[in-house]
Amino acid sequence: SKPFVLLAGPCAIEEEERVIRIAAEIKAITERLGIPYVFKASFDKANRSSIDSYRGPGLERGLEILARVKSELDLPIISDVHLPEQAAQAAEVLDIIQVPAFLSRQTDLLLAAGKTGKIVNVKKGQFLAPWDIDQVANKIASTGNKKILLTERGVSFGYNNLVVDMRSLPRLHAAGYPVVFDATHSVQLPGAAGTSSSGEKEYVPPLMRAALAVGVDALFMEVHDEPALAKSDGANMLPLAGLEKILKQALIIDQAQKDCQKIN
Amino acid sequence: SKPFVLLAGPCAIEEEERVIRIAAEIKAITERLGIPYVFKASFDKANRSSIDSYRGPGLERGLEILARVKSELDLPIISDVHLPEQAAQAAEVLDIIQVPAFLSRQTDLLLAAGKTGKIVNVKKGQFLAPWDIDQVANKIASTGNKKILLTERGVSFGYNNLVVDMRSLPRLHAAGYPVVFDATHSVQLPGAAGTSSSGEKEYVPPLMRAALAVGVDALFMEVHDEPALAKSDGANMLPLAGLEKILKQALIIDQAQKDCQKIN
Amino acid sequence: SKPFVLLAGPCAIEEEERVIRIAAEIKAITERLGIPYVFKASFDKANRSSIDSYRGPGLERGLEILARVKSELDLPIISDVHLPEQAAQAAEVLDIIQVPAFLSRQTDLLLAAGKTGKIVNVKKGQFLAPWDIDQVANKIASTGNKKILLTERGVSFGYNNLVVDMRSLPRLHAAGYPVVFDATHSVQLPGAAGTSSSGEKEYVPPLMRAALAVGVDALFMEVHDEPALAKSDGANMLPLAGLEKILKQALIIDQAQKDCQKIN
Amino acid sequence: SKPFVLLAGPCAIEEEERVIRIAAEIKAITERLGIPYVFKASFDKANRSSIDSYRGPGLERGLEILARVKSELDLPIISDVHLPEQAAQAAEVLDIIQVPAFLSRQTDLLLAAGKTGKIVNVKKGQFLAPWDIDQVANKIASTGNKKILLTERGVSFGYNNLVVDMRSLPRLHAAGYPVVFDATHSVQLPGAAGTSSSGEKEYVPPLMRAALAVGVDALFMEVHDEPALAKSDGANMLPLAGLEKILKQALIIDQAQKDCQKIN
Repeated sequence: SKPFVLLAGPCAIEEEERVIRIAAEIKAITERLGIPYVFKASFDKANRSSIDSYRGPGLERGLEILARVKSELDLPIISDVHLPEQAAQAAEVLDIIQVPAFLSRQTDLLLAAGKTGKIVNVKKGQFLAPWDIDQVANKIASTGNKKILLTERGVSFGYNNLVVDMRSLPRLHAAGYPVVFDATHSVQLPGAAGTSSSGEKEYVPPLMRAALAVGVDALFMEVHDEPALAKSDGANMLPLAGLEKILKQALIIDQAQKDCQKIN
Repeated sequence: SKPFVLLAGPCAIEEEERVIRIAAEIKAITERLGIPYVFKASFDKANRSSIDSYRGPGLERGLEILARVKSELDLPIISDVHLPEQAAQAAEVLDIIQVPAFLSRQTDLLLAAGKTGKIVNVKKGQFLAPWDIDQVANKIASTGNKKILLTERGVSFGYNNLVVDMRSLPRLHAAGYPVVFDATHSVQLPGAAGTSSSGEKEYVPPLMRAALAVGVDALFMEVHDEPALAKSDGANMLPLAGLEKILKQALIIDQAQKDCQKIN
Repeated sequence: SKPFVLLAGPCAIEEEERVIRIAAEIKAITERLGIPYVFKASFDKANRSSIDSYRGPGLERGLEILARVKSELDLPIISDVHLPEQAAQAAEVLDIIQVPAFLSRQTDLLLAAGKTGKIVNVKKGQFLAPWDIDQVANKIASTGNKKILLTERGVSFGYNNLVVDMRSLPRLHAAGYPVVFDATHSVQLPGAAGTSSSGEKEYVPPLMRAALAVGVDALFMEVHDEPALAKSDGANMLPLAGLEKILKQALIIDQAQKDCQKIN
Repeated sequence: SKPFVLLAGPCAIEEEERVIRIAAEIKAITERLGIPYVFKASFDKANRSSIDSYRGPGLERGLEILARVKSELDLPIISDVHLPEQAAQAAEVLDIIQVPAFLSRQTDLLLAAGKTGKIVNVKKGQFLAPWDIDQVANKIASTGNKKILLTERGVSFGYNNLVVDMRSLPRLHAAGYPVVFDATHSVQLPGAAGTSSSGEKEYVPPLMRAALAVGVDALFMEVHDEPALAKSDGANMLPLAGLEKILKQALIIDQAQKDCQKIN
């Protein structure tokens, strides 16, 4: 049976050659493993903890780099938009338009993403219950576009902490759309480092296995060749060097989950 | 000693004459009680739970109505913006630019609000710790505008529920700016009514008294002459008919808290 | 109108003369302020974080010391029991039998406390919703003893943290019994110091004022003449030297809240 | 490689013949599947939500019934104790002494359980962080008995809800003892049915798969031949008729997780 889809890449678009290098490397790994792959990177980190943090190259230059990944490496592309007006332009390059978690209740952004006709991946806000996603999906679907992905990335749990409620995954499925598990943002400790978020990347593999054992259609992961030097989210990004081993685990659990479904 | 400031009005701008009537009535009450008053209403509810909910008259028409309140009733005005591009135009009418809680991490919106030179009231996101507000305020202050208000409106507590952590109020003060307590959104049960939020308005007076006893500079309250007919947030808005009694309670506790400070 | 009742004293029974000294001092302060006073100290800390922590003198010796406080200083006494078999013996000295928060669902302990015929103060578990207290109170009341006090001491909020939901206080009142606010345990950070709990005693006065402004019948506070040397809960106990000023604040807010009720 | 151990049986000891029947049936299933099995049932439900709820046959009669299961069916037995004085007597029949979650901080109960020399299974309190278990385990180990099991059964998440933080499982392992996942209490909605707890048993299989994919040494499950008629926890107990299919899923995921470990 078909494996999950992987949405992966560095958090932010950094140097062009680094972006190409990471994309090419992940492509090679996923081809070896037979995993469908979509490249992810953000042109703008519009909600960093601190005003002094790196934001990215911006929409114009970011789309140029993403277009190069798309054409040179023949990869579909996912990236996030932050304002309604960005959606149409981004859709000229992107295959999947992503709506960030903090913005998952902003009606105009959801509508603008839907109107592009592209697949829309909406991250469930850290402040939403699983069933709250129904209204979010309805907003997108009201545009006539029902190519929707729903992403779990953890829910607020006290201060500077998130917890993944695995009950959320079947409940998101019940909305009628494919479900994505964001394995690297789910281990963020938002704001825990004072002027930035911290993270516990040692929990990425176990949470990834847990979500796959429950059953998800896609995995979202941020990956960097040198996380310690990354310009954002270094604390929770996976090192590229370890990706293949982690994806081998993912394939084993994904298959096991599909075998379980045959019992039911 | 001087009492708190009141920021109050209906959640959304509805019919023009109703808006004027509510503003005039609250003005009369606050003049009788000696409470400085700023009129509040939103021209656009950009993040309603459901796509089918009322949103408001929009920026242009909304600002016209707010300008009429301002000139006819000689009241300062607060309203919220949702996109960076709205800030400058809104600042032509508004005295206080408000940044909604869900958007309290959006850097460009905070900067656009700051750059108007107006007072900026930012609502602390339901997903933020009290100390996370420091970075939020720093973003606004980076524009050179330090006329900032910080509003507490509850933090995510399980699903479809908020809790007000009263420890937050002194911690917000520690950021160096005046603190506002939003007494009506703090009793929201977000999304709890399925396609809309529910609310427990019976808890507005006790939470308001609690916050004033801790010590706040301003109260934010949504008030409507007929909450049951209101086009948004009817479940947690206060009826106009009961406002004067509640404000009398507020004055008593506010004064008592100021008396307490003399003991320290 | 009559002020709140104060339940106060050191967390654990330490050296006998220290206990007497603290009790005498609090008695003098409360007499000056006209506050009814009940002495509190525990003979056994049965649920310390660590096996190496001080537990207290035990039931026999502890009751002897409490009996001396009672007779020498003519004070009513409150202390906590941990096993059903302790209740009857403790009731020979105590005026109020307290059931600890972790044990607030243990049926036999609630029944044994009820059967003493003494006033029973039950602390709402950190894992209970406000309305869950109804069933707890019903267990005690099933013994025919309806002299019940219900204490709020915070609810679990993420890890190693508690939050006081001030909505809880009117909801506890709705159960039909007097409500106590535990101002010092509410600022505990359970387990946050690794082998012990930490605490933020700077938040005791604001939370105390908040609870009084909402409306409570009694305040519970742990007080020590040298908190830094205390054998338990030093991080959240109030220093005896500051108690009078804090109680003056409490009286001001308590009176203000009662004045508010006249408006309604 | 060896599969997980199953700890399973009805919540409470009900009619003797029903207990024997359930135990025999689970024994037959686990023998077919090659899963080591320990029978579980409680002689006393000491912390029911309501005073009117069924508690069980009590210690004496309960141990008689458990002894019959042990001898007739040749099964090891686990059950829970609620008071220190029960531990020694219970240890005459039980192979594993269980400490309930609400009582997981009660030092004397932990010590009494440890002193029996039997395996001690302690359920992590709903109010504890994963790392808080270190001190709990240390209390038991201080008796010289290091045969300790640590059980995850969810943590408080807002009111009347629990969430399983899957990060907890590796953190419990880090304490140095085998880890158990309680798949049926983890889906409880404590107190949510007013005078009793509710539950979402449809989430037992996905949470069980998630925990096994993370990696646990044993599964704890409450099972009843007629859950709708059960005298306690009917809302979250599994029907016996569906157990074999669920355990087949469990074996698939458990094996897959062990295969993943070979990659690392």
